[in-house]
Amino acid sequence: MAGAEIESLIQLLARLPGLGPRSARRAALHLLDKRETVMIPLAQALSLAAETIKSCPICGNLDTVEPCAICQDQSRDATVLCIVADVASLWAMERAQGFRGRYHVLGGLLSALDGIGPADLGIERLAARVENAAIGEVILATPATVDGQTTAHYIADRLGGLAVSVSGLAHGVPVGGELDYLDDGTINAALKARRGI
Amino acid sequence: MAGAEIESLIQLLARLPGLGPRSARRAALHLLDKRETVMIPLAQALSLAAETIKSCPICGNLDTVEPCAICQDQSRDATVLCIVADVASLWAMERAQGFRGRYHVLGGLLSALDGIGPADLGIERLAARVENAAIGEVILATPATVDGQTTAHYIADRLGGLAVSVSGLAHGVPVGGELDYLDDGTINAALKARRGI
Repeated sequence: MAGAEIESLIQLLARLPGLGPRSARRAALHLLDKRETVMIPLAQALSLAAETIKSCPICGNLDTVEPCAICQDQSRDATVLCIVADVASLWAMERAQGFRGRYHVLGGLLSALDGIGPADLGIERLAARVENAAIGEVILATPATVDGQTTAHYIADRLGGLAVSVSGLAHGVPVGGELDYLDDGTINAALKARRGI
Repeated sequence: MAGAEIESLIQLLARLPGLGPRSARRAALHLLDKRETVMIPLAQALSLAAETIKSCPICGNLDTVEPCAICQDQSRDATVLCIVADVASLWAMERAQGFRGRYHVLGGLLSALDGIGPADLGIERLAARVENAAIGEVILATPATVDGQTTAHYIADRLGGLAVSVSGLAHGVPVGGELDYLDDGTINAALKARRGI
């Protein structure tokens, strides 16, 4: 079909999440069309990021500095720890701009099906961090899925003996959400957690 | 949110067709997770392709050799020319493996709305190629859209005076297609072009 260089480029692009073989071909043609403005800058950004971005040894966030900018930021409350499943969740929390404490990235969720246990997520390391770093409050922000809630309960149990208050994100109607489009579980959770106005 | 290196990587990824800001973030995290197997090879493939892949001066195909491998292939019929809108269409024809002639890539379609005229598509250059290269048959494989069919008719008119037979791809029911899911235009075109069995 096309030269080996184009083929290998398409195959690598198709390994990105969200791009199948057809959209990888479209992306390759788009890149070849915009060499100076997109293709070469993208190649350089990929090389630079692969070289310079590291996992923070304290919280697991990705950054070019060690420890990461969030762990180094003295204006953030070091006594409040938000526990997230992955870096994507951490970025989502940061975009919402409502949290000014620090993070702990688990790097996954407990899953009997996938054989992921507490040791794989470093939960003992997390418990040691909570104890040694004088954390006063832990907020569990794992996703509201079965695995996410299992993980949250496991961590809440494990931290139970320590002098720390543990909470989880509230369930309820998303802001701007129509009741008609919500699942029964969310409506019932919002009803149970109803608040005086 | 994240360091400047991650931000610029995400912004460049979001410029690929098929990737929005959210999927660009997912792709960036996936790449950082698979540095050795995907990220660094992708950076190298992009640099290599940007350097080595050129537009064929004869047909407009993309390849590392000049003229392209298809124009150089002596086993292909040099007297049959398939005219396509873009390299993606050329690749689609090659995947179908039914055509063994050569190509001419227009690089676009006539469009009054976008201000694309015959000069932008190099139609005089195409007419000169058809005349000088002793082409006996031209197959118009522009898409079955309004602009595609306008372009096909314009080219057929322009080549009218030359000693060349001009045809277009047939319209009809796609192989494997259900009538119930087809538009009226396609069904009527297939009915008009019905064939004895």
